[in-house]
Amino acid sequence: MPTAEEQHKTDSTNLLLFVALLLLTIFTIWIFKHKRVRFIHETGLAIVYGLIIGIILKYTSHPEAANTLNVNSTNATCQQESTCPGLQFSNPELRQVTFNPELFFNILLPPIIFHAGYSLKKRHFFRNIGSILTFAFVGTLVSAIVIAAICYGFVSAMMLYNVDPSFNFGFVDCLLFGAIVSATDPVTVLAVFKELKVDVNLDALLFGESVLNDAVAIILVKAIQTYQKAGSSEFDSAAFFSSLGEFIGVFLGSFAIGGTTAIITALIFKFTKLGQHPVLETSVFFLMSWSCFLLAEAVGFTGIVAVLFCGVLQAHYTYNNLSAESKIRTKQLFELLNFLAENFIFSYMGVSMFTFSHHHFNAIFIVGAFIALFVSRACNIYPLSFLLNLGRKHKIPFNIQHMMMFAGLRGAVAFALAIRETCYEEQQMIFTTTLLIVFVTVWVLGGGTTQMLTWLKIKVDVDPDAATAVGENLPHVNNNGNMSEPETPPVRKYADSAWMFKFWYKFDQYYLKPILTHSGPPLTNTMPRCCLPLAKCLTSPQAYAENLDDDSDADFILNDDVSFGENQSTQNPPENSRIATEGIHTVTNENELKKDADTQQNNTPLSQEGSSEGFSSSYNGIGLSVVPSSGDDNQV
Amino acid sequence: MPTAEEQHKTDSTNLLLFVALLLLTIFTIWIFKHKRVRFIHETGLAIVYGLIIGIILKYTSHPEAANTLNVNSTNATCQQESTCPGLQFSNPELRQVTFNPELFFNILLPPIIFHAGYSLKKRHFFRNIGSILTFAFVGTLVSAIVIAAICYGFVSAMMLYNVDPSFNFGFVDCLLFGAIVSATDPVTVLAVFKELKVDVNLDALLFGESVLNDAVAIILVKAIQTYQKAGSSEFDSAAFFSSLGEFIGVFLGSFAIGGTTAIITALIFKFTKLGQHPVLETSVFFLMSWSCFLLAEAVGFTGIVAVLFCGVLQAHYTYNNLSAESKIRTKQLFELLNFLAENFIFSYMGVSMFTFSHHHFNAIFIVGAFIALFVSRACNIYPLSFLLNLGRKHKIPFNIQHMMMFAGLRGAVAFALAIRETCYEEQQMIFTTTLLIVFVTVWVLGGGTTQMLTWLKIKVDVDPDAATAVGENLPHVNNNGNMSEPETPPVRKYADSAWMFKFWYKFDQYYLKPILTHSGPPLTNTMPRCCLPLAKCLTSPQAYAENLDDDSDADFILNDDVSFGENQSTQNPPENSRIATEGIHTVTNENELKKDADTQQNNTPLSQEGSSEGFSSSYNGIGLSVVPSSGDDNQV
Repeated sequence: MPTAEEQHKTDSTNLLLFVALLLLTIFTIWIFKHKRVRFIHETGLAIVYGLIIGIILKYTSHPEAANTLNVNSTNATCQQESTCPGLQFSNPELRQVTFNPELFFNILLPPIIFHAGYSLKKRHFFRNIGSILTFAFVGTLVSAIVIAAICYGFVSAMMLYNVDPSFNFGFVDCLLFGAIVSATDPVTVLAVFKELKVDVNLDALLFGESVLNDAVAIILVKAIQTYQKAGSSEFDSAAFFSSLGEFIGVFLGSFAIGGTTAIITALIFKFTKLGQHPVLETSVFFLMSWSCFLLAEAVGFTGIVAVLFCGVLQAHYTYNNLSAESKIRTKQLFELLNFLAENFIFSYMGVSMFTFSHHHFNAIFIVGAFIALFVSRACNIYPLSFLLNLGRKHKIPFNIQHMMMFAGLRGAVAFALAIRETCYEEQQMIFTTTLLIVFVTVWVLGGGTTQMLTWLKIKVDVDPDAATAVGENLPHVNNNGNMSEPETPPVRKYADSAWMFKFWYKFDQYYLKPILTHSGPPLTNTMPRCCLPLAKCLTSPQAYAENLDDDSDADFILNDDVSFGENQSTQNPPENSRIATEGIHTVTNENELKKDADTQQNNTPLSQEGSSEGFSSSYNGIGLSVVPSSGDDNQV
Repeated sequence: MPTAEEQHKTDSTNLLLFVALLLLTIFTIWIFKHKRVRFIHETGLAIVYGLIIGIILKYTSHPEAANTLNVNSTNATCQQESTCPGLQFSNPELRQVTFNPELFFNILLPPIIFHAGYSLKKRHFFRNIGSILTFAFVGTLVSAIVIAAICYGFVSAMMLYNVDPSFNFGFVDCLLFGAIVSATDPVTVLAVFKELKVDVNLDALLFGESVLNDAVAIILVKAIQTYQKAGSSEFDSAAFFSSLGEFIGVFLGSFAIGGTTAIITALIFKFTKLGQHPVLETSVFFLMSWSCFLLAEAVGFTGIVAVLFCGVLQAHYTYNNLSAESKIRTKQLFELLNFLAENFIFSYMGVSMFTFSHHHFNAIFIVGAFIALFVSRACNIYPLSFLLNLGRKHKIPFNIQHMMMFAGLRGAVAFALAIRETCYEEQQMIFTTTLLIVFVTVWVLGGGTTQMLTWLKIKVDVDPDAATAVGENLPHVNNNGNMSEPETPPVRKYADSAWMFKFWYKFDQYYLKPILTHSGPPLTNTMPRCCLPLAKCLTSPQAYAENLDDDSDADFILNDDVSFGENQSTQNPPENSRIATEGIHTVTNENELKKDADTQQNNTPLSQEGSSEGFSSSYNGIGLSVVPSSGDDNQV
């Protein structure tokens, strides 16, 4: 047993190792960005470096000790340490280079997921909301079941031919594996998309799908584990319905906690002047967002899912109430946390490939898993796209479908789900296979993204603003707060979208946004007469002066009205609404000009991507509609 | 034994409790700032809230369990848990509301200390460097020894009259206590100073003293603990010299690690164009600064001290190489981390007052400690001021001395040092007494700062730039890189400062700064002929075009040439140098104008304090000299 001081020194050394690994990765990323190398992405790189360090650690730290520990002793070890500690490492020294698996779920994932929600490009996201929800919910379930079925086929075959006598892998284990590897990762592909300015709707579809399916996969895994713990090997309908209930309950509960936190935060910033002190404001924003994670975990829901919805709503409501400085501060803070956490996780994956001692490689299962992955992705994308295309005015073309098929990478969430439980042989096999799947998909699919885009002739270098310049089709709210339809009748386009979203959109614009932010129309005009005192109390003074068009979501469109590859540049810029809000626009534009000047001064074409993207997308408002499109030349 | 899941829920609940506590503190801070309440500072508030939560926790969670645990069983508990876990809490549920004491030293203190170093106002700091070093080194040693002597007097008296027979508190314990409570805390007083814009030299003296004496106290405690572990109760000269050696070794080692890290970081940013990607740049900056902490801990030095020097040097060199965006990003990041960590520590202090079960209150010792504190501060400030005044051209007046005497608050560092070891009764008594000292000094001295400033008739509302506008007395380096003396001969003023600092200043300006940053003069002019190839290689292209005056430290003065309360507004603005660097100034000023415009737009007079202070102080350069002084009216 090492003394506390020795322990502390070892901990520091290990952490230093990972910091050095991160620094190495960052420098290589920089060199690659500098030289415009695209065959491998930063996450792929982080894995490679992790693998190298893992090999070095394994073969430099007393290999004889590693041999004395037997894989079969795992269960005993786990049961001795009553709380099932997760990773077992091959010798005491390697055991040091490990972190509590809960670390991934409780410290590293939340900022990644929150950032995903917070940096969501609402415009494109909501335009494709129907398709995204279908892919995320139905798609993930289909994917998990197909993977489970195929893997179960392979496992049964192995048992039948008695390949591995000690092998005991039931259908529920297969289902668990299916759920774990159904969480697709947006990081790598989307980084390439961003760099190449790929078609915004493809980007929105993939981003939306991968963000939401993380939530679905996480809760699915939780539900399956609840079912597993019910214990019987036969199908147990009581346990099934209880885990189904848990799935729905946890989802709704997490959603409610995330939503409530965001609403409270929005109201705090609306009714106080915390913005006078950006440090306090940013702290409150950070602490509130974190507290929704902790609250969800404390009451037994899923913090990650709560934090995701919290992030989406914080971006939709709270962001508008922040001071200009805090808008930048919060974006930059979460961007940094996301970057560090992500690279740490991918480095750690590489390291754990060699330092985790209880890997359980089963070649047949691994082959089966890769086949299952491929088939399940096909069963997810193509049939659902076909069904969605029946309802979409602008269809999802085949090249986009192929790209979505190709972009099914697995990453941090799958890893974090797999590493949580590695006590039993089946769990170890799941962990090992998941790790391999992450490596292969990140390297092969991530590295091949650029090539695949060229090959599928997908439009790149699209001006994201040009494709969204359809703001003129929104119901127009004038300064008196009375709704009036714009000159060009929007009826035809509205017919495309589901009534539910139309309802939600109106509810959001006329009630939620005015209640939660400073934007108009004033509630005194939209709420029933009986609620007048309440409406007066809730309406911000700015709402009377402001126009709907000035809001960041003026182009929050409900229908799938932008086709893939079609140029949607505006024919009729809404001159009238622009004039109506002249005064307010002047301020906004000054801000933009200043930002632009800064950007040019820095000569950093890429550097502003992460930080100012979300920022400017929230500032542009209706101004977008006059940006000329330059996308046509690349169209195929 | 709770299951992993229960444990996780409890952990989440506890963390949620602290997050809620922080939020509560922040809101109260905001209300207090809003209402301009100054009788209690935010740190004092955090303690009060912590105390309330502590009481609630203590009396709501199974009080009967608390009574069954006996204080005398402590040693047994400690020895059972072989690594001496620090805090013992009065019942299993309260035990949950605890954190590993190492958390304070390894997670919460580093950002606070780094921020202190990074936000150091170099101009005023270096002008008073001699006095600051004297107060920090000699003063802390004097303080520790005086406290130890007085406390030992009280302890001996108690033993003589047999007040507490079980009592066993040797001189070394007293010395340990003296070292722990000699670490003064800058937070509370300086926050008040900043708000009131108090005399900059008083501010610099107190800030410099409290930052550096943390380092001295931390290493002193480490050395005394080494001596203690040698074990004999008699004076052991071998152990004494080994701990003296350790004191010097650890100080120099930590200094070297911090310095090396900062130099490497500066060179990285000088010779790469990482600034094109601010996220990468900020990450590297953060990781490098953190790695110096980890490296120092891994090799057995003191991470906190390393991080302090690293922070000072990062601000002095690396900061100038950062891109404009990263300058703001890094400032804001560490400002936020500092704010959160600080308030967390002070909240936690309040909570631990009631939840820590092994408090050892000894009224006589506590009274003795407060007397010792008062006497030791007097023995530190007045004699040292007297000695320093013999050498200073502009003396430290008595009202400033009284204010320094009054401003001896104890805070986070003293707490972190005391909580590290709480196994034995003596350590518990030290912990309890330190906690009380922190509370009383933060509330009474912190709360009385404004009153005391008025009472002592110390100048407030001083324009910090006006008092430092003495840039014209520096040796002037023209564009050819040849040194030339300015028109007004500086000889008389230089005579005031020690040769060592003159040497250091020249060495820094002509060699270190040109090597580590982009500023001039070119090394090709200053280095010996034989090193010409190396000099060419190290000199940045900007150095040939740049002028010394353009650097952020143009007013880096070595002598204590600014008197307290005297108006130092410039009589002769150096027109010539201003014209010489016109082109470069244009860019800088544009940046400033943009910043100013942003600031005005936000209407946030206080919000910019923390974030833009360091920024503008680094941008102003020689431009300072034309700022008119407005300080005279308030002078008494």
